[in-house]
Amino acid sequence: TPKNELLGGLIAAGFDDQSCLSRYQSALYRKTSPHKPSSYLLSKLRSYEDLHKRCGPHTKSYNRTLELLKSGQNAGPTDCNYIVWISFSGLGNRILTLASAFLYALLTNRVLLVDRGTDIADIFCEPFPEKSWLLPMDVPFTSQFSSFDQSSPHCYGNMLKNKIVSDSIKSVPSFLYLHLVHDYGDHDKLFFCDQDQTLLEKVPWLIMKSDNYFVPSLFLIPSFEQELSKLFPQREAVFHHLGRYLFHPSNQVWGLITRYYQAYLAKADERIGIQIRVFDTGTETFPHVMDQILACTLKEKILPEINMQESVVAPPKNVKSKAVLMTSLNSGYFENIKNLYWEHPTMTGEVIRVFQPSHEEHQQTEKKMHNWKAWAEIYPP
Amino acid sequence: TPKNELLGGLIAAGFDDQSCLSRYQSALYRKTSPHKPSSYLLSKLRSYEDLHKRCGPHTKSYNRTLELLKSGQNAGPTDCNYIVWISFSGLGNRILTLASAFLYALLTNRVLLVDRGTDIADIFCEPFPEKSWLLPMDVPFTSQFSSFDQSSPHCYGNMLKNKIVSDSIKSVPSFLYLHLVHDYGDHDKLFFCDQDQTLLEKVPWLIMKSDNYFVPSLFLIPSFEQELSKLFPQREAVFHHLGRYLFHPSNQVWGLITRYYQAYLAKADERIGIQIRVFDTGTETFPHVMDQILACTLKEKILPEINMQESVVAPPKNVKSKAVLMTSLNSGYFENIKNLYWEHPTMTGEVIRVFQPSHEEHQQTEKKMHNWKAWAEIYPP
Ligand SMILES: Nc1nc2c(ncn2[C@@H]2O[C@H](COP(=O)(O)OP(=O)(O)O)[C@@H](O)[C@H]2O)c(=O)[nH]1
Ligand SMILES: Nc1nc2c(ncn2[C@@H]2O[C@H](COP(=O)(O)OP(=O)(O)O)[C@@H](O)[C@H]2O)c(=O)[nH]1
Repeated sequence: TPKNELLGGLIAAGFDDQSCLSRYQSALYRKTSPHKPSSYLLSKLRSYEDLHKRCGPHTKSYNRTLELLKSGQNAGPTDCNYIVWISFSGLGNRILTLASAFLYALLTNRVLLVDRGTDIADIFCEPFPEKSWLLPMDVPFTSQFSSFDQSSPHCYGNMLKNKIVSDSIKSVPSFLYLHLVHDYGDHDKLFFCDQDQTLLEKVPWLIMKSDNYFVPSLFLIPSFEQELSKLFPQREAVFHHLGRYLFHPSNQVWGLITRYYQAYLAKADERIGIQIRVFDTGTETFPHVMDQILACTLKEKILPEINMQESVVAPPKNVKSKAVLMTSLNSGYFENIKNLYWEHPTMTGEVIRVFQPSHEEHQQTEKKMHNWKAWAEIYPP
Repeated sequence: TPKNELLGGLIAAGFDDQSCLSRYQSALYRKTSPHKPSSYLLSKLRSYEDLHKRCGPHTKSYNRTLELLKSGQNAGPTDCNYIVWISFSGLGNRILTLASAFLYALLTNRVLLVDRGTDIADIFCEPFPEKSWLLPMDVPFTSQFSSFDQSSPHCYGNMLKNKIVSDSIKSVPSFLYLHLVHDYGDHDKLFFCDQDQTLLEKVPWLIMKSDNYFVPSLFLIPSFEQELSKLFPQREAVFHHLGRYLFHPSNQVWGLITRYYQAYLAKADERIGIQIRVFDTGTETFPHVMDQILACTLKEKILPEINMQESVVAPPKNVKSKAVLMTSLNSGYFENIKNLYWEHPTMTGEVIRVFQPSHEEHQQTEKKMHNWKAWAEIYPP
């Protein structure tokens, strides 16, 4: 496999490429990254992969640590510690929290295991060699994940509040639930403090639910600071690197992505993406958001001005063709822009083609094809 | 102007090309016609054009004949006779009846004048050199056109029924209304008989309303038979030639047609058109019509089979790209086919792109942009 296909060393070699076509093919579609991963990050990823191989599902160490969880004993010293990510919220949020949880795993030498929810296994390829990142089905508590909340008895914040755990505690429980959801309280937020991290370090199983991209908060924890700056000399590229490392569309989604690209986008000289996410779908906000989109795209010269005087304008020779990919739950914004460039020529004579892969009308996180489409619309190069 | 641009001699030279870009540019977009117009048809068109120049709006002969209409006198011998086409029904029907009325004009040496309705002048270019085909606004009765029907006092069928006119009549009225709409009665249908044509010949103004493509009925009138076979040795090409001769999209519509073509269709190796017109838009018929569309396109090998087993199929080298243009008042059929070829690969690996320019939801013949879009969707090469 050419080095380029491995995204500058980000991706480990030696995966079976048929089971995850996107891992090696995506480089053919995407621009080369303007950001280079640090060699420290690369070596950290390689050692994480070794850890994951050693501690992943059904390894000896895993089985031993799982016993602790099953027996409900307090924790003794363990070989491997885990951070379990609970599948929660829409796909966009899940991508952000998975990346955050993985960074937390890197910083704390934990193994990341992911709750498969309804469809995680059909959305993403396995990111780590040899051992799965999917939490085995027979782990205790998995059926209760969705009911875990701020007031669950195992919730760390709740236990702090009720003084069931504290800094000075001698023997820690074998697992704790971390509630990092938008409705979290002050005790839950203590997760982001150094002295709490010192306590949590000793807990073999941390189970986390979040819908926040909490990477920035990790940067605020003094004990992580040095490591983070070595891993990411360029702070704003954290998600860029972790995202490319972790998230490879499953073959099903890769089919959607590549077919859409080949059918509608490949032949354009320039591709422009516009996503519109509004929570108020009423007709009142529509014209305001529409105005904003047009004002922005015209001002920033992303789209050309409309010619309201002429009905036909000959395109100049050798003009670059532009394709606009619009994504949104509704089709109104797309229809508007598509019609605008159909009904009128541009001042420059350029021809603008506008596409929208889907309009799902409302969020349907429980549906497989819905999430596949959302993922396919996020990914295009 | 190269000969090719004149559609094999069908179109007269010497039009101003800026006022009607489509007249000369359409040849660049369309396949060369597989049907050659007869030289007899060409000479007939040229003499029709001379007649139209001599008898068109505001010429001396026109003014004289208009006087007859204004005064309500019975007809005497006239220089020029007219067939006035009333703008009625949807755009598709109007195109068919205009072609029929024009053929009737050719066969009876009448001059075709068209009621502009709300938008005829913005839909079509002038088809005849120098003199307009639009009925001047100041002609009597124009405001009553929409109320003309089977029981109007000037309706030919009605007059026959009430014995106000008959074969043996000596002096004919200066105008008659011909009701050729789908609800016409037996007396109206006598229009298609030889002896009625003998009478009608003497009437200077015939005013016609129709939503039928009545060309086939003209072929059944014995006195037209010989002329028709000389004009159209190939019977099935009547509309092909008359349509290309008469209907040139206005510059506004030409803008819609060419922009859509350049944006979405130009780069495909093969273009496939599917129009779906259903009157029952209920959810019950939908799956049946959908099944029919798929059964037909697959059986006739217009579209490739779907591969339900694989999620990604590599396209073969040098595969032809296919664009499907679907048009319909609703978007359901389009969404279905577009999704089918997005969600699954084809057995052949071919990539199918699917487009629908508009989905107007219901017929809105009174709206300008609605008709422009309908015309733009009919026209693509
Ligand atoms: N296909 C598609 N789905 C969308 C789009 N916008 C929102 N969604 C759906 O709505 C969900 C939004 O939830 P989430 O990703 O958590 O983001 P947030 O709710 O905007 O914070 C997505 O995961 C999709 O399921 C879009 O443009 N395309
Ligand atoms: N834009 C568009 N309009 C359509 C389509 N199908 C039907 N219409 C509209 O509905 C009218 C149909 O009326 P008409 O042409 O008289 O045909 P008929 O009613 O099918 O006999 C058209 O003129 C359009 O205004 C379509 O596929 N696209």
